[in-house]
Amino acid sequence: MSDTAALVQSLAERVQVLEDRLAILDLMAFYGPAVDAGDAEAVIKVWTEDGIYDVDKLKMVGHDEIIKMVGSDAHQGYIARGCGHVLEPGYVEIDGDTAVATCKSQLILKDEDADGFTVARVTANRWELRKIDGEWKCTVRTSRVLDGRAEAVELLARGARGR
Amino acid sequence: MSDTAALVQSLAERVQVLEDRLAILDLMAFYGPAVDAGDAEAVIKVWTEDGIYDVDKLKMVGHDEIIKMVGSDAHQGYIARGCGHVLEPGYVEIDGDTAVATCKSQLILKDEDADGFTVARVTANRWELRKIDGEWKCTVRTSRVLDGRAEAVELLARGARGR
Amino acid sequence: MSDTAALVQSLAERVQVLEDRLAILDLMAFYGPAVDAGDAEAVIKVWTEDGIYDVDKLKMVGHDEIIKMVGSDAHQGYIARGCGHVLEPGYVEIDGDTAVATCKSQLILKDEDADGFTVARVTANRWELRKIDGEWKCTVRTSRVLDGRAEAVELLARGARGR
Repeated sequence: MSDTAALVQSLAERVQVLEDRLAILDLMAFYGPAVDAGDAEAVIKVWTEDGIYDVDKLKMVGHDEIIKMVGSDAHQGYIARGCGHVLEPGYVEIDGDTAVATCKSQLILKDEDADGFTVARVTANRWELRKIDGEWKCTVRTSRVLDGRAEAVELLARGARGR
Repeated sequence: MSDTAALVQSLAERVQVLEDRLAILDLMAFYGPAVDAGDAEAVIKVWTEDGIYDVDKLKMVGHDEIIKMVGSDAHQGYIARGCGHVLEPGYVEIDGDTAVATCKSQLILKDEDADGFTVARVTANRWELRKIDGEWKCTVRTSRVLDGRAEAVELLARGARGR
Repeated sequence: MSDTAALVQSLAERVQVLEDRLAILDLMAFYGPAVDAGDAEAVIKVWTEDGIYDVDKLKMVGHDEIIKMVGSDAHQGYIARGCGHVLEPGYVEIDGDTAVATCKSQLILKDEDADGFTVARVTANRWELRKIDGEWKCTVRTSRVLDGRAEAVELLARGARGR
């Protein structure tokens, strides 16, 4: 193989890695508008069909249970009152066709009797991801509120130690 | 065309897409320091000359009106008091030389009579962007406060449905 | 050099720039889980050995002083109470093997006598970075609280003006 052909081969691999990273960041960034719009059909695009969204008090397994949460009185009530599920940039580690992304999220709600907003929750998030037919999807998202509970701190520690 | 030449051609296109995505994220990330520094000349670099910044109660058309907002007593008062216009990562869809990015922003203000800060607003943002002479600029940024109003939720829904 | 070889050479340079940008964003995103997990050994990976973390009232020089801060009663107390150091996407300018990233961060703490959380601080951050043996590290991170003080606003203005 010529020098140029070898360099092209190595560039193709590097471009693939960059595309994977941006696709994962994009998938995470897509969750926000989908969930705050209350659009369940959009939200489930983030997960594989049997994907899990495991929040402190509610573990949803598969698209149907996630759809139910988005349509619930609790979630729709947040939207009617005014809310933002705000994400920070994720720290992503890719290993072939799987990846883990770690970040925090805020749930911010409109104050019911005042002009401002309140940070209702700050949550540690671990996204386990898989590339299927060229597309990244979440297989398990685990979210634990950062209220001092060990589980939430441990979730971040796993991300910081790598996988 | 040889296999290598064909691969190089396809890589060139993929690298262009990656550069476009990062340039758009970068443009959005540039708004924050510019606006919180109160630097109007920096802020307007985000928009085309006739670009629009359409916020709930104030629709600014063109650089001059945006400059006026940055220099206004209201905005300069926020800076003197202590403020941060904080952005989350945007969800970006590119279609040739145009793009749409959807994200939320927070306006956080220093409490006037206490040590802490208050989330004054959480806002849905839609950035319509255009690539002109190789450079991405915002043509229209629409911002609606997430206080339960339908317009703000619809703005996010448009982003989640794709364009 | 053939047309293809010239294009490959230019692609190699462009891919390197993209990798640099993503590596820097990734380094910044890594700080969050590390610091909120209270994992000092992870936190110091962000800085060069003699790296500086200069916060309003505390200037840490070198890994040992940063380790001491992470292990301090103050920081560990935040974690026990419930906290999130939340970052927004950084605005990054690269110049060869050095770079500057500008962004804001929030320190959010669990309310001690209520269910919610409070934004304790919004801070302007300037990250000065250097690429050493192919790896980006922070040489100086300067953080100033956005409570109206000129230093914090000036830090953002420097970022918006470019370097």
